Amino acid sequence: MSAPPDTPATTAAAGAAREAVDLDDLVTHLRERQPRAIGRAISRVESGGEAAAELVRRVFTATGRARTVGVTGPPGAGKSTLVDRLAAAARERGETVGILCVDPTSPFSGGALLGDRIRMQGLATDPGVFIRSMATRGAMGGLARATRDAVDLLDAAGFDWVLVETVGVGQDEVDVVESVDTVVVVAVPGLGDDIQAIKAGIMEIADVFVLNKADREGADRTFRDLAMVLSLADHDESTWLPPIVKTVASRGEGIAEAGAAIARHREWMEANGRLAERRRAQLRLRVETILQERMLVAAREDAGLEVEVGRGFDAGTDPYSLADGLFHGVVEAERERGGKR
Amino acid sequence: MSAPPDTPATTAAAGAAREAVDLDDLVTHLRERQPRAIGRAISRVESGGEAAAELVRRVFTATGRARTVGVTGPPGAGKSTLVDRLAAAARERGETVGILCVDPTSPFSGGALLGDRIRMQGLATDPGVFIRSMATRGAMGGLARATRDAVDLLDAAGFDWVLVETVGVGQDEVDVVESVDTVVVVAVPGLGDDIQAIKAGIMEIADVFVLNKADREGADRTFRDLAMVLSLADHDESTWLPPIVKTVASRGEGIAEAGAAIARHREWMEANGRLAERRRAQLRLRVETILQERMLVAAREDAGLEVEVGRGFDAGTDPYSLADGLFHGVVEAERERGGKR
Repeated sequence: MSAPPDTPATTAAAGAAREAVDLDDLVTHLRERQPRAIGRAISRVESGGEAAAELVRRVFTATGRARTVGVTGPPGAGKSTLVDRLAAAARERGETVGILCVDPTSPFSGGALLGDRIRMQGLATDPGVFIRSMATRGAMGGLARATRDAVDLLDAAGFDWVLVETVGVGQDEVDVVESVDTVVVVAVPGLGDDIQAIKAGIMEIADVFVLNKADREGADRTFRDLAMVLSLADHDESTWLPPIVKTVASRGEGIAEAGAAIARHREWMEANGRLAERRRAQLRLRVETILQERMLVAAREDAGLEVEVGRGFDAGTDPYSLADGLFHGVVEAERERGGKR
Repeated sequence: MSAPPDTPATTAAAGAAREAVDLDDLVTHLRERQPRAIGRAISRVESGGEAAAELVRRVFTATGRARTVGVTGPPGAGKSTLVDRLAAAARERGETVGILCVDPTSPFSGGALLGDRIRMQGLATDPGVFIRSMATRGAMGGLARATRDAVDLLDAAGFDWVLVETVGVGQDEVDVVESVDTVVVVAVPGLGDDIQAIKAGIMEIADVFVLNKADREGADRTFRDLAMVLSLADHDESTWLPPIVKTVASRGEGIAEAGAAIARHREWMEANGRLAERRRAQLRLRVETILQERMLVAAREDAGLEVEVGRGFDAGTDPYSLADGLFHGVVEAERERGGKR
C-alpha cells in the first residue's frame, strides 16, 4: 500500500479550523479509496461521539450504492474462508470489496486480528480489497453502531461489495448482521446439539444458508435438518424462502452458487420493495442506538452520573429512582443550554 | 405448589387504586416467598417500564442479603447440572435457593425452558427452591436489566442464594453474570480452539473456574492451560486469583469444593471491601441501562420516533441528524410536562 498524501497526524491540540481541514482531507481521501484514509475513518467511528457523527453526516449522501452482505455462523464453520472466496470471485468480475471482520467476543482491538486474515488469495495486497477487523467495545458500548458506521464508510469509499463477517452466537452479532442487505448463515455438518440450538437463534435472520464443509460426514443429514426447519417456518409467495447452498469453501466448491443465491436475494428484495423496507428498519435501529449512546454521555457529562450513583449507593437508593433523577438532570442541562449542542 | 390466596388476575382495565392494592398484595406474597407471586413479579419486571420500576422501588430496601452467583460457560459444559448440584448442596444445609436460567440466544419466552430443568434432585417440588427461565427480549431490549431486577426480587423474597445460569458466549451474558457477587465460569476438557477462543473473552470476569467433566480425556491438559492463562494475568496480594476446581457434576464429584471456593471468594470480597465496590459498579450499570431504556421510550412516545425516522428515510437524512432532532424533541416534551413523569 502506498501512503496517501496526507496531512501530519491530527493531535488533540489541533484547532477547530485545522480539524475541519483534516476532516475535508479525510473525506476526500476516503472517497478516493485510499487505504490509510479508510483505516483512519474507521478508527474515528470506532471512537464514537461527535467524531463519528461528523464523519457519517459528511459521507451519508454518498452511501446506499454498495451491496452489503453479512456472514455469520458458529465458530469453526469456515466463515473467513467463505468470505475470502466470495471476495476473490467478486474481484474476478472486476468488482471491489470491503471486508469488516467483527468479533464482539474478542478483547483485541481493531486491526489486531488482521494477521489472521492475510493468508490466502492475495487479497491483502490487492488495492481493490480492504480488510479491517473490528473488535473494540468503546467506552460507550457501540460495536454494532460502529460497524454500521464503518459499512457506510466503505460504501461511500465506492466499494461494490461490503462483507461483514461475525461470529454468530449472541444478540451483538444479530445486531451487526442486521445492518446489511443480505444475511448469510453458515452451518457445518456434525455440530453438537448445543451448537445447533445456538444456531436456531439466528435461523430467523438468515436470507441464505451456506452448508460449508459439505464433503464431511453428516452433511446430508444436516442439509435435511435445515430444510425441514425452513419448511416449518411461515412462508407464502410474498416471503423469501432462504436457499441452502452446499460449499467446500477451502476448495472453492459451491462459491459461484453461493454468490448467485446472494444476488438472487438482493434482486428479490429490490423487486419487492423489501430493500427499502429493510433499510428503513435499519435506520430506525441506528437512530435508537445513537440516542442511547447520547443519553449515557449526557448523563455522565451533564448530570453527574458518577457522583449521583456514588451518593445513591451510600444512601441505598434504588436504581430506578436514581435514573429518574439523572434523566431530569439531563433535560435541565439541555434546557439551560438552550438546545444548543 | 399450592396456589397463594391471590386476588383475581389483574387486567389492563383495572384502575389505579386497584393496581395499588394488587401491588401491595404482590409484594406481600413475594416477601412470603409464594411461588406464584414470585412468578408474577418476575413477569412484571420482564415487561419493563413503569411496572418494573414500581416493583423494584418497593422491594429494594429488602435486597442485598442474598448471596448471588452467576454460572456461565460454553454450551455443553454442564452448567445446569452444576447449578442443580450446588442448589441441592445448599438445601442440605437448610438454605433456600432461587435459580434464574437466562438464555439470550433462545427465542422462547419465560418459563418455556422450565420442563428441561425439572429432571433431577427433586428440586422442582421443593418449596425451598424456585426455578425460572428468562429468555424473552422485551420490546425495549432489556434482558440483562430484567435479570438484575429478578435477582432483586428473589433476594427480597428471602432466598439465601440466587443462582443465575447463562450460556457464556457474548456481551449479553457478560452483562447478566456481572450482576452477581461471584462469577463461576465452567470449562470442559477437549473443546476446540474456536470455542476456547470464545471462552477467553469471559476469562477476565471469572472469580472461580470449574473444570467440569474432569474425568474426561484431556482434563489435565485443559487444567494446565487454564492455570497457565491465569498465571499470566496481573495479580498481586491485593487481587483475587481465581481457583480452578475439578468437578464431575453428573456424579456430584467436586461439588463441595466448588461450593467452598465460591464461599471463599465471597469472604475475600467482604473482607477487602470489594463486595461494596462491585455492587456500586453494578448499580451504575443498572442505572445506565434504565436510562437507555427510558430514552427510547421517550423518543417513541414523546418525540414521534416512528414518524421522524420514516420522514428522514424518505429525505435521505443521516441517522445522527435524526437522533439530534429526537433528542431535542424528548427534552422539549419533558420540559413542557414540567418535569412530571
